[in-house]
Formats: sequence, structure tokens, C-alpha cells
Amino acid sequence: MTWLGIPADHPFGVATLPYGVFGTPGDPHPRAGVAVGEWIIDLPAAARRLAPELAGAVAGPSLDALLAAGPRVWAEVRARLTTWLTEEVYRDLLAHALVPARDAIMHLPFTVADYVDFYASEQHATNLGRMFRPGQDPLTPNWKHLPIGYHGRAGTVVVSGTEVVRPSGQRRGPDGEITFGPSRRLDIEAELGFVVGAGSTLGRPVDMSRFPEHVFGVCLVNDWSARDIQAWEYVPLGPFLGKSFATSISPWIVPLTALDHARVVPPARTVPLLPYLDDAGAPPWGLDLRLEVRLNGHVVSRPEFAGMYWTGAQMLAHMTANGASLRTGDLYASGTVSGASPDQRGSLIELCWGGEEPVKLPDGSVRTFLEDGDEVVITATAPGPDGAVIGLGAVGGRIGAAR
Amino acid sequence: MTWLGIPADHPFGVATLPYGVFGTPGDPHPRAGVAVGEWIIDLPAAARRLAPELAGAVAGPSLDALLAAGPRVWAEVRARLTTWLTEEVYRDLLAHALVPARDAIMHLPFTVADYVDFYASEQHATNLGRMFRPGQDPLTPNWKHLPIGYHGRAGTVVVSGTEVVRPSGQRRGPDGEITFGPSRRLDIEAELGFVVGAGSTLGRPVDMSRFPEHVFGVCLVNDWSARDIQAWEYVPLGPFLGKSFATSISPWIVPLTALDHARVVPPARTVPLLPYLDDAGAPPWGLDLRLEVRLNGHVVSRPEFAGMYWTGAQMLAHMTANGASLRTGDLYASGTVSGASPDQRGSLIELCWGGEEPVKLPDGSVRTFLEDGDEVVITATAPGPDGAVIGLGAVGGRIGAAR
Repeated sequence: MTWLGIPADHPFGVATLPYGVFGTPGDPHPRAGVAVGEWIIDLPAAARRLAPELAGAVAGPSLDALLAAGPRVWAEVRARLTTWLTEEVYRDLLAHALVPARDAIMHLPFTVADYVDFYASEQHATNLGRMFRPGQDPLTPNWKHLPIGYHGRAGTVVVSGTEVVRPSGQRRGPDGEITFGPSRRLDIEAELGFVVGAGSTLGRPVDMSRFPEHVFGVCLVNDWSARDIQAWEYVPLGPFLGKSFATSISPWIVPLTALDHARVVPPARTVPLLPYLDDAGAPPWGLDLRLEVRLNGHVVSRPEFAGMYWTGAQMLAHMTANGASLRTGDLYASGTVSGASPDQRGSLIELCWGGEEPVKLPDGSVRTFLEDGDEVVITATAPGPDGAVIGLGAVGGRIGAAR
Repeated sequence: MTWLGIPADHPFGVATLPYGVFGTPGDPHPRAGVAVGEWIIDLPAAARRLAPELAGAVAGPSLDALLAAGPRVWAEVRARLTTWLTEEVYRDLLAHALVPARDAIMHLPFTVADYVDFYASEQHATNLGRMFRPGQDPLTPNWKHLPIGYHGRAGTVVVSGTEVVRPSGQRRGPDGEITFGPSRRLDIEAELGFVVGAGSTLGRPVDMSRFPEHVFGVCLVNDWSARDIQAWEYVPLGPFLGKSFATSISPWIVPLTALDHARVVPPARTVPLLPYLDDAGAPPWGLDLRLEVRLNGHVVSRPEFAGMYWTGAQMLAHMTANGASLRTGDLYASGTVSGASPDQRGSLIELCWGGEEPVKLPDGSVRTFLEDGDEVVITATAPGPDGAVIGLGAVGGRIGAAR
């Protein structure tokens, strides 16, 4: 219980304590903050008074220093925050550092080093395989042996709320004609992102068991996708311009520790895994996260992360199995979270089945792909301790007309 | 002519003036330098005395500030360097800033933002298509319509001389068995890299004509590739761990201006190009660069960049056609430079045709793919003004045993 008087089921209660970077109209310079209820704790301000020995780790215009500080410092900062918020004696001491969340302007919370996107939902990979490679086995032969991933563009990762300008590009029409113009099949991908804090050494793989030592926390990701551009360009070297125009992330990074009660056993593996990916018997890293995708305010999908075939720990181990090093600020995303049921699909191309089955919205309108002015917001919650709800901050974006 | 007395055909004469980052045993802190003959000009030291107004642009432990400063400053710094080196009056004034190149320890010259790898050689794409997708058309239908590219791992770009530890990974054997272990088909890719200086705005494509305003210069790239890992993983989302363990770049960035005399018309386009890629009639950006690939000291290939189907200007325009922004330090590489003749192939998989035709070295040994201890060095030269030779600094690396 906190003296702040937050409802027990508030997604940003004391069991969540996510980190972000904010400014206010009165003090616009970006700085680290922690969301709790309808407030943000100005972290540098709080640390200066209450924990000067931690001030260095939370200083600066981003979370970069905190991410780099490593798991011992992460635990220490979180323990302090919990103490400050739950012991009445800190009510006055913390008052100077509390900012109303409604006043905050949120910034990209960390410097994105490398961005990797995985493809970890069996249902999503199957659905896209059916649409992109009709007549072939929808899952490629490697799919159940390794978490397929590829690098995306780190420089176009933007914070929630940033307008997404409709991209233009090359498309091949049904008649085979190649044209250039605004994407006609602009889509979303609802994903979970893992934020790397502590880096690793080049040439040294990182074992699955070290996942919580390297990964600081999670955010929500909307991996905007121009399906027409992607379909024409992606063979043989993978998605490029169909994805690289923008990737939105939620402004709040929820620490991995806050998801302790959400850990579940991932789906049964149907082919044997090589030792570096075999998590049978290991502490599980499936996550009982329930996502909601809203299009213009209407829920169009409720994907469940618990059904993802590959876990964040496996993705980490795979990504470094060749000796590739991690850097502070690496972001890797799960790939679209799609479930078995049609209302659990995390992309429009699946929800409208390639355009064949338009999605009906309650206001009577229908959608296949996104129209200019459409707004998509993705949220998620997970179970916390003692019935608490752990919320991930929303990731939202509105489509601007092509230029 | 310079008072330094450099031979007219020296690859680092006054017509080249490449930028790098170096330290010396006596003063190890990394700082910007310019190579000329057997010397390095300590750029911050020279600027402090001779051009204090430029000192800010050449300060710091990398070239990042200079890259960000933009084309006007790039031209100004180069003009000053030329004056200092060609006017006798500067002989004494510059003496304090000259460091023998043999003493230098070279560092990664800039912070790599995003790394993109293209696939711009028709011969290379054809050769690899034949080997990776036998029985199909070797060039995918999109190949002549757009420069195919994908994002690589920026965090594992290393400077020439860094040991390359043999990566391990998943491979599928000829019997279909999936195993994990050190790559048995470790390869090179000899490429040209383009270094972005001035960034651009999200949502605003960069036209081909603005190539020299954004691209600071070029370097040599060895895009090390584990072919067995790549072959198993790359469908459908492209190369990932087969490439991400290391990408080596030369320590010297040759300014684009130094290649003015090397500009040639690229190969005739055999399908019509969309306007944003159509460079017919525009000032040409093909480059008469001759590469040499040495394996353990023996030249095994002499690829010619002039034969590349797509130019650096087209790659830039394509990479940003969807509105993706550029950042200072973005690196994009051409893809393997391979020519039509067998001794112009820029990768071992082409030189040994997938292992079927081992490469014979003069010492009697043969190679298909790289063995532990092998060293690969790539160099290149281009024609300069008045018969001068423009050299690109070598990129080299030795294979270390798998861990």
C-alpha cells in the first residue's frame, strides 16, 4: 500500500514502477521519471535529496545511464522507490519530486542501439506464410528450430504519440506493373519489446539463464508495416523499407522484475531444441501478458503473449549464439503477438485476412488497412503480486497523409 | 606537390587525405587524424594552432562531430589541409602535429548509427542465387527494379585488425540434421561502405542529387559471412546470425570529394527505372575503384567497383524513399563487389563455387572457406587528379578459433 492512495488495480501501482523520460511545460528538459498512479516521480530530483549515491545512475536526458548500470543498481533503485512510496515518513520528503502525469511530455526513453525484430508467434508466422507464400508450407523448415529474427532500423524507432507519415515505395500490382506511391496496405504489428541494459563482450554468447542480468525491462512496440512494399522487396534479404519508416514504442519501460508474477510456461515445443535454446525445466520465461489493440478507440484484437512459442530468454540466447555482442539500449521485439482465435490477431493483415474480410468497427465503418487519420493504440496488462495489475504504458500513433 | 616529399603515386598523397581516429603509445587517447604519406596529421592539434574556428568540428574521440558538421565544414577542413600541405610556409607550423603513421593505433573512426548492407552487384547476386536457390531464376524479380538491402548489426562493426572469432550457430547438414557448432563455411564479402555525415528528417526522402550533401566519404568493408548459418536461417526474413558476428571496416574514411576523378557511368540499365532511381543523364556515381583481396598475403581476387549495377546515390535515395531518416554515422555498404570474370569475385563462396572448386594459393595450399589463423586484407585504389592514385585504407582481419 502506498500513501499516495492509488486504487489496488491501477496498472501503474507500486508493483509496476515503470521508467520513462519526461519533461513538463514548466521544466521541459528531458529527465528520468517513474510512473505511479497519476503521478511521475522526477527521479533525478528524488535521488538528489533521498539517495545521492544513486544520482549518477539516474542523471541525464535518457535512461541510458540507468540501463548501463546493471542489475544490482536496478534492484537498488527499485527497492528505494518502493520504500519511498510505501513508508509514510517519505510522504513529505518525496513531495517536491512528484509531477502530475497529465502535464508530462514523454520522450524516447533511451538511445536505441540495435533494433532486432523476431517472429515468435506460431500463429502469426503461419498466417503470414499462408498469405505471402500461398501453396507452400506456411512455416519455413527452420521456424521451430530457432527464433527467426532480423535487424530493423534503430534510427526510426519513435516514442508513442509520434505521427506516422504514410510511407511511399515500390509496389507490384496484380497485373505485374511496378509503381511508386503511397502504401495502400499500411498495417500494424502489436509486439512486446525487450530493452537491453547491460551489454556483453564480442565473441561471447549470452546464456538464456542470464536473461535477467542483461534485459532491464519491456515495452510495447507497434512495428508499422507497409505490406505492399514489403511483399515486393523482401525476397531474398528480408523486410527493409516496408518496416523502416517508423517503429513506435511505449514511453514506459516496465522492469523485468515487475513481471515475476506473470511468468508462465511457454507452449509445448513440438520439435526437440538444441541445448542453447532448450528451456525445458528451466525457470519459465513465457509471460501472461494480455494485449489490447484499439483502432480509433475500438478494440479490434486481444492478443495474448502467453501463447508465444519463443521466449525473450531464448531470443537473447539465439541473438548472441554467434558471439554478437549486446549494447546498452539494444531493443529486440517479439514479432507480432497473434493467438489462435481470430480476435487475437495482432496485425490488420491477419484480422482482415489480406483484405478479403474487412474488419467492422462499431461505428459502422470497415477497415482492411489503415486510412489517413486512423489512430492505433496498444495496451497490455499482466498479473502482479496480491492481485495487483501490472500495466505496460500504451503505445499509440496516428497516420499522417503521405507527403 | 607537398613539401612532405610524398611520391606522386602514393595512395595517401595530398589528393586523398582520408580521416581516421588514432592514438599513439605516447598519447593513447583517440583523436581525429588525417593520413598523408607515412604520416598522420593530428587534426585537433593542427586546428588548435592553425584553424581554431574549426577546432570544435574535429574535437572528440571520434569523427562524429566532423561528420555532423555537414558539407560546408567538410570542404573547409579539406581546403585547409591542402593549403597546409602544399604551401611551404606551413612546414614548420604543422610540424608539431605530424605523427609517424607506423606508431599509430587505429580505432573505429565513428559511432555507427544504423548499418545497412545492399546487394548491388549483378554478378554476385546471380552467383549466390544460383548456389542458394538452384533451379530458380538466380536474380529475384525485384532485383533490377530496386537496390535490395537489409539492416545489419551496427554494434558489431569493428575496425580493421580486430580478430574475428569463428562464429558458432545452427546449420542443417546434407542429411537434414540440425546441429550447433562452429561455422564450416566462413567467408568474406569485399564491399565498399558509404558513411553518412549529415542526417535527414523523418518522413522526408533524400533525393539522389543530394548524395554528396549527406555522404561524407567511403571506406572498405569486409562483411564476414557464415554461409552455413546463413543458408539455414535466412528464409523468410533475411540474413541475421550468419552476418551479425562481425563486420570489419577500414580505419580511414576517404572523402567523397577525393573520388571526383573516379566517377564513371554505371552499367547500362536493362529495365526502366522509376523516377526516384533513374540516374540516366544525371552526373554519374559509378566509381572506378579497383579492389584487391589478399588471403594470407596472396591476391585471390581483383573486383572492380565500376561494374556495380546500383550506385551509392541510388542506394541512398532508395533507403530513404519511404521517409526513413538518416543519422550521422549511418553506414551503408554496397554488397559484395564481384565482376564477370572468375578472378573478380569478391567472396570465397563464389571463388570456390560453393566449395566445388577450391582456390589454389601460391604456397601450394588450397582453400574453400576460411581456416583458423587465415588473414584477409582488402585494399582499393582509384584514379585521382593529374595521375594521382587515391587509396582506400586496407581492411584486414584474422580468424580466431571458435570458443
